[in-house]
Amino acid sequence: MMLIGVVDTTFARFDMGSAAIDELKRCGTGFKVVRRTVPGIKDLPVASKKLIEEERCDIVMALGMPGSKATDKMCAHEASTGLIRAQLMTNHHIIEVFVHEDEAPNAKELAWLMDQRSREHARNVYNMLFHPENLVKNAGQGLRQGYEDIGPIKER
Amino acid sequence: MMLIGVVDTTFARFDMGSAAIDELKRCGTGFKVVRRTVPGIKDLPVASKKLIEEERCDIVMALGMPGSKATDKMCAHEASTGLIRAQLMTNHHIIEVFVHEDEAPNAKELAWLMDQRSREHARNVYNMLFHPENLVKNAGQGLRQGYEDIGPIKER
Amino acid sequence: MMLIGVVDTTFARFDMGSAAIDELKRCGTGFKVVRRTVPGIKDLPVASKKLIEEERCDIVMALGMPGSKATDKMCAHEASTGLIRAQLMTNHHIIEVFVHEDEAPNAKELAWLMDQRSREHARNVYNMLFHPENLVKNAGQGLRQGYEDIGPIKER
Amino acid sequence: MMLIGVVDTTFARFDMGSAAIDELKRCGTGFKVVRRTVPGIKDLPVASKKLIEEERCDIVMALGMPGSKATDKMCAHEASTGLIRAQLMTNHHIIEVFVHEDEAPNAKELAWLMDQRSREHARNVYNMLFHPENLVKNAGQGLRQGYEDIGPIKER
Amino acid sequence: MMLIGVVDTTFARFDMGSAAIDELKRCGTGFKVVRRTVPGIKDLPVASKKLIEEERCDIVMALGMPGSKATDKMCAHEASTGLIRAQLMTNHHIIEVFVHEDEAPNAKELAWLMDQRSREHARNVYNMLFHPENLVKNAGQGLRQGYEDIGPIKER
Repeated sequence: MMLIGVVDTTFARFDMGSAAIDELKRCGTGFKVVRRTVPGIKDLPVASKKLIEEERCDIVMALGMPGSKATDKMCAHEASTGLIRAQLMTNHHIIEVFVHEDEAPNAKELAWLMDQRSREHARNVYNMLFHPENLVKNAGQGLRQGYEDIGPIKER
Repeated sequence: MMLIGVVDTTFARFDMGSAAIDELKRCGTGFKVVRRTVPGIKDLPVASKKLIEEERCDIVMALGMPGSKATDKMCAHEASTGLIRAQLMTNHHIIEVFVHEDEAPNAKELAWLMDQRSREHARNVYNMLFHPENLVKNAGQGLRQGYEDIGPIKER
Repeated sequence: MMLIGVVDTTFARFDMGSAAIDELKRCGTGFKVVRRTVPGIKDLPVASKKLIEEERCDIVMALGMPGSKATDKMCAHEASTGLIRAQLMTNHHIIEVFVHEDEAPNAKELAWLMDQRSREHARNVYNMLFHPENLVKNAGQGLRQGYEDIGPIKER
Repeated sequence: MMLIGVVDTTFARFDMGSAAIDELKRCGTGFKVVRRTVPGIKDLPVASKKLIEEERCDIVMALGMPGSKATDKMCAHEASTGLIRAQLMTNHHIIEVFVHEDEAPNAKELAWLMDQRSREHARNVYNMLFHPENLVKNAGQGLRQGYEDIGPIKER
Repeated sequence: MMLIGVVDTTFARFDMGSAAIDELKRCGTGFKVVRRTVPGIKDLPVASKKLIEEERCDIVMALGMPGSKATDKMCAHEASTGLIRAQLMTNHHIIEVFVHEDEAPNAKELAWLMDQRSREHARNVYNMLFHPENLVKNAGQGLRQGYEDIGPIKER
């Protein structure tokens, strides 16, 4: 039985963790989910590392919504750097699912994007755990999570 | 008996540590506080780590007021990066409570904001330690510390 | 028998991993390739480290195509920082092969550049592993991967 | 007998190390000083760590004068990040004393500022080592090193 | 017998490693040089660390020429951060000798500057290894490597 950690924030304006868990369950079986919620994205790195080292998770999804101000952008950078460091310290993947508050033109589309990206990355996580060969098949295919795939360059 | 570390700075223009400790005591019992003060925010990471490793604190609040100049913004970035690193080295949460000097339009509101954010994060810390399920309930609820909560997106 | 790790992404719009592997095979023999593909460039650092520590690779190529937006540039910075950290934690070289989406004026040239840079760095990797003296001979020679070499300064 | 490390640079245009040592001696007794000088501020992190780990210093002062160009600002950022990392690796405080070359309007005031800030931080270091309770008393008091203290907010 | 590591790049447009080695030999005796060359500046950190840990070098010179584009500046930042991290992981000095491609007005002066800075830092390295007291004597003397020393502030 594999363990998938899911950690999100109270800062985000959409429940990304629940969307991710719902989609994981649609992907298949053979795993359990351990969920945590922290105040903001800068709390995600250690929460993710604790899920790996203390709860024995095999992989973690770290979901958040960085705000649109300059300080928020810096927070996102710090959180991302921490998530990469946490992965290197544990030799486990932590899939970062960030939706910047200013990526969508309005609140409705923002919520849609947060839902969609959480779900598409949930499928990535399922594949990384159970079917890594599916990722190799898609190498260089211009895949995107949330908005539509851009696809590979075909003009050669 | 849990131990909560509280570390703030002599640089800040408001006694954030005392506000945090006062609020923690209003939250409930079952913990003791260990307090430290350092010159500036760049001294917070190691002070927090020492509280965890040498004083056996279960969680730490690191409070500071980054100045408004470009170099001050960089200091805040360096301090935040260090606080995340300290958390990853110890597998303990350190809740960063920063109020940027230019977040408020005047000194009076700045002091109010420093007080308010310190108190709201104190409640987060209490919940993380004693009632982590309260954070999961608030996942994606658009919570903010200091100014008013923005709330979840409701237009879907 | 040496082991060369090759890891690329599903985000890129060209299959850089296959280009690198094809070129490695043209360089000579005496090695095997272990390939992985991850969603994006921020997943490369831990994937590279796992290739070194879990698959015993002697050297790794980490290939990706950072997008052209400001957030993408920051992602590239975070991934690069992580790749350097992974190298320092393992004492093994990881050769970063990044082609920024805005380095070429159009999609066709972008694909050419991604192919070319992947192949030229594959030759670097082969030399680092089997003929490090070839690199010393080229010290200060103004070599470039992808576009033409600029060459050493001759006006002295 | 406590040991205080003092490390400065040949790049700076004022002998900050001597100013710091002179002030430390005015503060009291009970300690010895170990001094080092390195070429530039990016050499300070490892020099400070060696003072802690190889010379057994209890605390270190790292003094430097970042230049005024954009690359110099980046050097200061890299040095600061390294100093924080060195502290986290050793669980010892390293007090950074940086005076940016463009902080003062002319050379004369720059030298005054470098002298003054070195001395005021020397007093911080002495207090951190022998009277940490003095720092707690000054929490939130708006203290500055070099130019005048701004003081706490009083308008509440 | 001391060991000095020298590592440079094929990207640079001048053979900085040879200049550094030539100058080291003019400084005196009592040491041997171990030389490596890597593709670019981001490969310098692990190459330097390997020289220290696998070849037992006592100190390392890491020489490179960051390009003039924005991405090149970021590469330089990443390389510098990695060099500082490598020093902290090994408790050994690694002297960074970077000449930015846009520091000089033309190619001829750029080559001169790369030669000169490599040589002046070679003398720093020799002194750090054999005469560290010479650096303390020069504390705050406004020394520069490459272009002329600016000197200490004398107007006090």
